[in-house]
Amino acid sequence: MATIEHEKTAETQKYKVIGTRPIRHDGVDKVTGRALYGADKRLTGMLAGAMLRSPHAHANIKSLDTSLAEKLPGVHAVVTSADLPDCTDKVANLGEGSVNLKHLSNNVLAGEKVLYRGHAIAAVAADDIHIAQEAVKLIKIEYEVLPPVLHVLDAMQENAPLLHDDLKTDELGEIADQPSNVAKHFRFEQGDLEAGFAAADVVVEHEFKTATVHQGYIEPHNATALWNADGHITVWMSTQGTFTARQQTAELLHVPVSHVKVVPMEIGGGFGGKISVYLPPVAAVLSKKSGRPVQLVMSRTDVFEATGPTPGSVIRIKLGVDKEGNITAGEAWLAYEAGAYPGSPVGAGAMCVFSCYDIPNAKVDGFDVVVNKPRTNAYRAPGATNAAFAMETVVDEICEKLQLDPVEFRLKNAAVEGTRRVDGPVYPRIGMVETIEAIRDCEHFQTPLEGKHRGRGMATGFWFNIGLKSTAQATVNPDGTVGLVEGSTDIGGTRASIAMQLAETLGIAAEDVVPTVVDTDSIGYTDVTGGSRVTFATGWAAYLAAIDIQDQMVERAAKIWDCDATKVHYEDGAIHGPDGNKLTFKEMAAKAQTTGEPIIGRGSADPQQPGGAFGTHLVDVEVDVDTGKVTVLRYTAAQDVGTAIHPAYVEGQIQGGAVQGIGWGLNEEYYYDDEGTMRNSTYLDYRMPTTYDLPMIDTILVEVPNPGHPYGVRGVGEVPIVPPPAALANAIYQATGIRMRELPMSPPKLLHEILGKAKTNGA
Amino acid sequence: MATIEHEKTAETQKYKVIGTRPIRHDGVDKVTGRALYGADKRLTGMLAGAMLRSPHAHANIKSLDTSLAEKLPGVHAVVTSADLPDCTDKVANLGEGSVNLKHLSNNVLAGEKVLYRGHAIAAVAADDIHIAQEAVKLIKIEYEVLPPVLHVLDAMQENAPLLHDDLKTDELGEIADQPSNVAKHFRFEQGDLEAGFAAADVVVEHEFKTATVHQGYIEPHNATALWNADGHITVWMSTQGTFTARQQTAELLHVPVSHVKVVPMEIGGGFGGKISVYLPPVAAVLSKKSGRPVQLVMSRTDVFEATGPTPGSVIRIKLGVDKEGNITAGEAWLAYEAGAYPGSPVGAGAMCVFSCYDIPNAKVDGFDVVVNKPRTNAYRAPGATNAAFAMETVVDEICEKLQLDPVEFRLKNAAVEGTRRVDGPVYPRIGMVETIEAIRDCEHFQTPLEGKHRGRGMATGFWFNIGLKSTAQATVNPDGTVGLVEGSTDIGGTRASIAMQLAETLGIAAEDVVPTVVDTDSIGYTDVTGGSRVTFATGWAAYLAAIDIQDQMVERAAKIWDCDATKVHYEDGAIHGPDGNKLTFKEMAAKAQTTGEPIIGRGSADPQQPGGAFGTHLVDVEVDVDTGKVTVLRYTAAQDVGTAIHPAYVEGQIQGGAVQGIGWGLNEEYYYDDEGTMRNSTYLDYRMPTTYDLPMIDTILVEVPNPGHPYGVRGVGEVPIVPPPAALANAIYQATGIRMRELPMSPPKLLHEILGKAKTNGA
Repeated sequence: MATIEHEKTAETQKYKVIGTRPIRHDGVDKVTGRALYGADKRLTGMLAGAMLRSPHAHANIKSLDTSLAEKLPGVHAVVTSADLPDCTDKVANLGEGSVNLKHLSNNVLAGEKVLYRGHAIAAVAADDIHIAQEAVKLIKIEYEVLPPVLHVLDAMQENAPLLHDDLKTDELGEIADQPSNVAKHFRFEQGDLEAGFAAADVVVEHEFKTATVHQGYIEPHNATALWNADGHITVWMSTQGTFTARQQTAELLHVPVSHVKVVPMEIGGGFGGKISVYLPPVAAVLSKKSGRPVQLVMSRTDVFEATGPTPGSVIRIKLGVDKEGNITAGEAWLAYEAGAYPGSPVGAGAMCVFSCYDIPNAKVDGFDVVVNKPRTNAYRAPGATNAAFAMETVVDEICEKLQLDPVEFRLKNAAVEGTRRVDGPVYPRIGMVETIEAIRDCEHFQTPLEGKHRGRGMATGFWFNIGLKSTAQATVNPDGTVGLVEGSTDIGGTRASIAMQLAETLGIAAEDVVPTVVDTDSIGYTDVTGGSRVTFATGWAAYLAAIDIQDQMVERAAKIWDCDATKVHYEDGAIHGPDGNKLTFKEMAAKAQTTGEPIIGRGSADPQQPGGAFGTHLVDVEVDVDTGKVTVLRYTAAQDVGTAIHPAYVEGQIQGGAVQGIGWGLNEEYYYDDEGTMRNSTYLDYRMPTTYDLPMIDTILVEVPNPGHPYGVRGVGEVPIVPPPAALANAIYQATGIRMRELPMSPPKLLHEILGKAKTNGA
Repeated sequence: MATIEHEKTAETQKYKVIGTRPIRHDGVDKVTGRALYGADKRLTGMLAGAMLRSPHAHANIKSLDTSLAEKLPGVHAVVTSADLPDCTDKVANLGEGSVNLKHLSNNVLAGEKVLYRGHAIAAVAADDIHIAQEAVKLIKIEYEVLPPVLHVLDAMQENAPLLHDDLKTDELGEIADQPSNVAKHFRFEQGDLEAGFAAADVVVEHEFKTATVHQGYIEPHNATALWNADGHITVWMSTQGTFTARQQTAELLHVPVSHVKVVPMEIGGGFGGKISVYLPPVAAVLSKKSGRPVQLVMSRTDVFEATGPTPGSVIRIKLGVDKEGNITAGEAWLAYEAGAYPGSPVGAGAMCVFSCYDIPNAKVDGFDVVVNKPRTNAYRAPGATNAAFAMETVVDEICEKLQLDPVEFRLKNAAVEGTRRVDGPVYPRIGMVETIEAIRDCEHFQTPLEGKHRGRGMATGFWFNIGLKSTAQATVNPDGTVGLVEGSTDIGGTRASIAMQLAETLGIAAEDVVPTVVDTDSIGYTDVTGGSRVTFATGWAAYLAAIDIQDQMVERAAKIWDCDATKVHYEDGAIHGPDGNKLTFKEMAAKAQTTGEPIIGRGSADPQQPGGAFGTHLVDVEVDVDTGKVTVLRYTAAQDVGTAIHPAYVEGQIQGGAVQGIGWGLNEEYYYDDEGTMRNSTYLDYRMPTTYDLPMIDTILVEVPNPGHPYGVRGVGEVPIVPPPAALANAIYQATGIRMRELPMSPPKLLHEILGKAKTNGA
């Protein structure tokens, strides 16, 4: 393995547990197949559910008749949107932002209109899946098929088919007279844009397009629900946020949140796509009607057609730079496809588009536009990859035009502590500069790339990360170990990264912590596993729980030593008192059993400064000019990871994010026909990169501790997906002289450009 | 229903939730059959286990050959005691007292000797239960059969067959030269016994015998275990104490406690009999050897033959009373059958035998004696019923001899606050006198009993109750409810009684608490559900968790109101601040989501003064002199219940205890043949009373709050089993003139006495 080990900084080398690489606590279950995922749940009397999904991308439902399905022997319940309570004018704040519940409800089961191919319309619960699927076919629907609109620019046209007749947004977010497909328009501005461009010696302006791509998690969505006779609903599911799923389910069903218990099963990937609920309310209502537990599991095609991809987008960048290489002005226009209901990540894209640089004069316009595709959802640094692809390609072109070294250009303009971002915030201590320097100094960069049709590209990316709320409980066992109870579902090794912070604080071994992820009735409120927040915020909660234990152990030791607690302190895994008295954690844990009440610590965190993350990637490619295929020869990613709690998992996050970014850059896309049917909704046709397609992704962990966290943690999971498409585009340009401005840069598209260029050159 | 409603005292009527009768939170699952008990657990790849049990009551195992069983197709593992680690000289403190691990290990799987019929010797795990049972038959054992000793007095004989050659106890607990079956002898003394008896005007002395009886819970023992490849063991089981089961399992298998997770399934009764482990270590080792999860479930015969009954005993009481009716001296000699291994509840019997009275001069000798019966285990006020049967019968006889009113006699000699018990403790505020007065004043007592062969009897009983350690966690939901997480398995409605104390403290409704009983990895250390301690100690932990929430809400309100926290206080379900500011709990719960970290409370309790409980029972019987059958006509139980948290469940505990005491008194017994085989090991032959055999048990709740608890809670579950046999004996005497001094007072035994008396009278 070519992964570059990180060297600890002075600040991080003081730790004993943090920075080590213990085996993950859930490892054995994962590698032996014992871990239970959503579809593994079995309950006595459980029914199988199947869903009716729209064959049309855009249609009115004129009539809906479920009577034949209900009569099929073995069918226990059929539900449609008529079985869901009215959610008109309801909005829920779900931690990562407010959600229009009427839209969410209509996405769960379509009302009068279907807005995309695969849109759920009805569901059946039956004795087995075959009967359920048979019953689905017996549901009679009369559609009035409407023309679909599938691309953001088409949807913004004045005469475009309208998805919703209540979306009215004018140029600056005010309510317009006429409905449109533009759900939101916002603008960030700073400085004097006109003056900025006037001061520029070179201005480059281009339009970029990115395709709709999917998170591509391995495990499809699932939900098993029991609506008990006492009104309490239990949902077993794979989810990134049990409390978020609880709240969405409760709000959609108009029951109090405490009547819903969400039990987290293991989760086979999420990447942002397992935050929104699709199945739980449907399974719950089927359960209520049938009196039995009901399980719903999506097929891969359901997942592609009906769960949150990340949006296709059109982005225009205009950048002005003076001769010395200083950025004088930047203008960005971003239009993102929301899918069927408002809520694209264009806001985050707009926050990130200029965020790597200090741009004194800037303007960013963002448009959230509905189209007849599935409602988009978060995908790893949502919105930022699209924006970085555009911005970093322009940066590369400007460097070329001014004959500036891309490293020097980036160092000169880099955002640093004190830089104000166009959307407002002023950076605390960040590591943008350090990641560029790390790339500049690495062996990969220092080694010249030789060979025909080969090129090297570089790009930088940013993700702001989030904080939100987390809780943790820690209980001391008499054998000197600690039970850690948490509410953060673990998609990336966070059992370990949280346990390690608890262990560090108590001065015990990571292996002496037994972490457990529990249901929503068994732990305090904990926000979603997303936004790269878990190691940061739940880790903080674990730290607080450990401090709580320290305090109790100090009190207990004072009682044992018969002295004042102020004379006792906790340090380095032990309690120290007067007269040389000392008890190690293990000794105290054993003594605690017989000297008073059990010691349990609690931690509850709402941290406000998650610390942004920066990544600079370097890639070497070789282009097969006969086919347009791009082979990645070498890839190095340097990232400001704050303090790397478990370096192997940080490296894994960087590698995984880079690979997803490479797939997005080179091959992945939703391929639609004119009727709005996705024509590649299987893993055979929607081609994601595998280990056979890629070299090992080398990583450089740059540790710039986050001053807003007791252990300097920054989120690390998202930013590595941001730079790859841009880095690849820049490398392809070096290899071929072709500037690709549309994703994916797949063989047919690149070959088209190569052939076009050959023709032009030949002419 | 004739249950007498209790009237709240001035002290208890101030409560809003405590003293009400909300529907239990787990009610729907229990009545609809959704609740999952131990044998309901299903795991992928789970194997079925079967056990080989000894056909002999006493034998040496000369050889043991499992090779044929191992070869049977479908068999995955066979274990014997050779697969358990050596536990010689190991002792574990398990909350309710220390346990000799060598004995526990040998009870789980016999070593060189079997000590009772049904003693487990080996176990098999196979693809299904039929194969496992077939394989058990293929295990070849060569026994050297030894003579069994089945009765405590026989076992104490000098030439009795010896069960253990390392038990050496002389008259006062010192190590003797020769081994014997007496595992322990202890003595309590106070005052001057000789002078006390010299001051007596009447001295009555008798010997009493009680039979071995079983707790008779509905659900047999079970354990499903998975020994994972990482060394962690998970056990799903019905148990009264997950942490106790965890510790026993860990210690028997020589793994740290944190490597064992015990997941509590619902429990179909325990009454003390589900504290000791029988199956978990065996299931775990079968799992380790097979690499698969393994489930073991006992049959009813296994339960009778091999799990803890409560001991048969012989008790001698000598009581001296002067003419004024003052008890001047008491002497008691108690010999209890421990079963195959030391550990009868004779200590508790000795603590309770004189505990209802102020006896200035007293001596109690206790003997713990091993016999060839299953190892005894706790059964509801263990040891006290045996003792009360003897003592209260003697009290009745003395009253008769001195022509004293039994009520007046008891009131005159009753233990009160400040009375010193023979085993040392001095009573705090107790309610012995109040229970006697309650009976004296009740309609039942005031209504004369008429009719032939009818009689009325009265008896009093005591149980000290225990405290031990408990933890609780309480999380505030945004809908104004609270999730309560606890480690106390719920055998008698304690989800409700603990939730109510949390609700009372917070000033919210009991229904607004969602209680959850979780596994040992998910909550702090919590001692066993036993000793009538859960509502007392876990309730205390819940109270502390609520106070913790109050404190956090006060802090949060101060932050919201921008004032000093000292100006804010929590009262009556709301937070009150300066300038008339007020937030109800629900308002604050909603606000907490947006004003800081989530609010979670923790409570950890180790209360020291559980408060003893007293019960006085009154019973009317009619004796069929032709058959010896005793019919219970009317039954009233008055009990000092401290504060009745949920009166309906307190009444239920009293009714259930009284019914078990009646069964013990009138009918239940282990019937052994000379070879030591129990001949009535089914519910058809081991006849427990049903609703068809009994009138409604009327209850009188006497609330004398326990000063050692914030809500005055005393344990209520155990003492109601103590008085019934004595009350019945005294009623039978009044009906027939016959003093029964042996339990059960079953038809054949009573008829024998009736016929004998008739013969004597006729002679």
